[in-house]
Amino acid sequence: MEVYLDNSATTPLCPEAVAAMEEELTAQWGNPSSLHRVGLEAGQLLAESRRAIATRLSCDPTEVIFTSGGTEGNNLAILGAAHALRRRGRRIVTSSVEHSSVTESTRELASRGFEVINLPVDRSGRVSEQDLMRAVNGETILVSLMAVNSEVGTMEPVEAMRRAVQMNRAPALIHCDAVQAFGKLPVIPSRLGVDLLTVSSHKIHGPKGVGALYVRRGVRLQPLVYGGGQEGKLRPGTEPMPAIAGFAAAARALPNPNQALERVTPLRDRLVQGLLAMNGVRVNSPQNALPYVINFSVPGLRSEPMLNFLSERGIYVSSGSACSKGKKSRVLQAMGLSDAEVASALRVSLSRYTTWEEIDALLYGLGEALAVLTRG
Amino acid sequence: MEVYLDNSATTPLCPEAVAAMEEELTAQWGNPSSLHRVGLEAGQLLAESRRAIATRLSCDPTEVIFTSGGTEGNNLAILGAAHALRRRGRRIVTSSVEHSSVTESTRELASRGFEVINLPVDRSGRVSEQDLMRAVNGETILVSLMAVNSEVGTMEPVEAMRRAVQMNRAPALIHCDAVQAFGKLPVIPSRLGVDLLTVSSHKIHGPKGVGALYVRRGVRLQPLVYGGGQEGKLRPGTEPMPAIAGFAAAARALPNPNQALERVTPLRDRLVQGLLAMNGVRVNSPQNALPYVINFSVPGLRSEPMLNFLSERGIYVSSGSACSKGKKSRVLQAMGLSDAEVASALRVSLSRYTTWEEIDALLYGLGEALAVLTRG
Repeated sequence: MEVYLDNSATTPLCPEAVAAMEEELTAQWGNPSSLHRVGLEAGQLLAESRRAIATRLSCDPTEVIFTSGGTEGNNLAILGAAHALRRRGRRIVTSSVEHSSVTESTRELASRGFEVINLPVDRSGRVSEQDLMRAVNGETILVSLMAVNSEVGTMEPVEAMRRAVQMNRAPALIHCDAVQAFGKLPVIPSRLGVDLLTVSSHKIHGPKGVGALYVRRGVRLQPLVYGGGQEGKLRPGTEPMPAIAGFAAAARALPNPNQALERVTPLRDRLVQGLLAMNGVRVNSPQNALPYVINFSVPGLRSEPMLNFLSERGIYVSSGSACSKGKKSRVLQAMGLSDAEVASALRVSLSRYTTWEEIDALLYGLGEALAVLTRG
Repeated sequence: MEVYLDNSATTPLCPEAVAAMEEELTAQWGNPSSLHRVGLEAGQLLAESRRAIATRLSCDPTEVIFTSGGTEGNNLAILGAAHALRRRGRRIVTSSVEHSSVTESTRELASRGFEVINLPVDRSGRVSEQDLMRAVNGETILVSLMAVNSEVGTMEPVEAMRRAVQMNRAPALIHCDAVQAFGKLPVIPSRLGVDLLTVSSHKIHGPKGVGALYVRRGVRLQPLVYGGGQEGKLRPGTEPMPAIAGFAAAARALPNPNQALERVTPLRDRLVQGLLAMNGVRVNSPQNALPYVINFSVPGLRSEPMLNFLSERGIYVSSGSACSKGKKSRVLQAMGLSDAEVASALRVSLSRYTTWEEIDALLYGLGEALAVLTRG
């Protein structure tokens, strides 16, 4: 039995996504920009796919821009907004626990003369609304917070961004990295009060290589690339059609997020109970985190041997974000964890397909790992 | 019978690409950045795929950067080189017949203060080496020419770029958009003397959503997006693995380009003979163009009704580049064609799968179109 519990890194494809991609590859492979029948059919597939994503976001299809994934979506939102509004101000407010695509793109903006505020977080990994309110000023052009932290599952005060911008009369655009929230929570940009929102396909059992950026109607961004007129000129280039078809199918196949949450929460509870019953284990995810992500530490035992021990037994978890590939977690450091806690952190991430048996297998494997690795 | 002769816009997938993608989707769907077995297997697939592209380009695998396609590859090369070398000069030399991703990214650079020279072309669509030699000066930081024009098949003097840069002691990087040449001609960056070279998967019977940029070892570019460490930090974000696997399989399945050319050339000759035998047809592609592309005009008959007439009969050609979707061809205008010739241009683009029957069906359909549409 193989137990894949690294669903925040990537997910296996749902059968609906595989079927849609096979159809595209063999029967609907045209270029959506071509004017003949083969192209028009591909164009229809593109339009239907866009509607499927728009339905999940309760937005208009024209507000959905297909990208190559979460990293490009976050970059298009952040670099695109900053450069579009550079004459209105130079402050960008974000947090110290964002995904590397947000952290690195805002760091790049700092080197281009923008002023970047990385808000601290509390022990639970959450930005305080008060800090946010204070950091946004009249020359703030962009505020960006993630909806759910990929390493610990903490939910950030996304809705407070709009209030902070309004109260401070900032000209800012508001962006939310919702890559880890999409499909697991209701994600409705207009209700969250954001102008820009990033989602990704391969975190919702769709293929890698595609994502979408919600761009509220009327919002102008500077593109990252230039070329043909695709995606409203915001993202030119022939569309990644097989991946788009798979993404749309995966989005259509998403269950009601609240119902899925009800099924996953008891699994999380069992896992956390099991972890707390083990000697020396500390759970880093807060109680009110999204139940799909459980981060814990076993101070004294480094993450890597633990990962390897479990991987050899067919149990797959991670030490943090796949995009930071084994580096020391910035997120846990920002939460004030000790070096020993950071060095021994493991992340378990569930999906709607996760079973009781898998949770038990993980707990059994962890018990073994503790017995074997602490002995040495 | 359906006759698809728009292979410069996109190609149907070869069976090898479909099989490789199905394997990735169902069995090798891991994140290559994950450190457990599922991730390591995806990492191996990524490495093998990179080697497959490197083999076709006769370069080192570390010189292959996967992108989302030709448009991103051209933008990364052009914006990336210009910004990396902005302290060495501000002149960029390119031609007036490039793909929109080159034309629009250099136009954007012009708006950012760079000086862009768009070299003219002769009646055959070719840049003169003398013009190139004169345009490159000591503060030229980028020279970019396409290998094969997508609308008319003209081959550009790519190898002259290196001579122009050396003779004028320019600090320039040299880029070649080889999207239309890759798989149809031997494309070996080191032999062409270029630093950067763009290829795309969906023009060689691979999937849409992936391409590669050859970046000669030691060449520094400014990335377009920032994030994790993927693709040597030049192109971060989780890799588009299904598309990469398909691209690699399509690259492996490419026949020897010279042998394929020997098979395609007589098909082109038959088509051109047939066209010239028709009343009022003028062939716009030069005699020495790459035989995969045949552009012709029927002055007095507009392209669109012709396209539609043929499409209704299951014959698919185009009026120009798919990425310029029906707009008046810049390429043909630059070649000095009359308005009537430009407005009536059609492009037929062959593939290694094109048959005699398809050429005959096209000629028959064109004959019908001329008879019916000129009558009205």
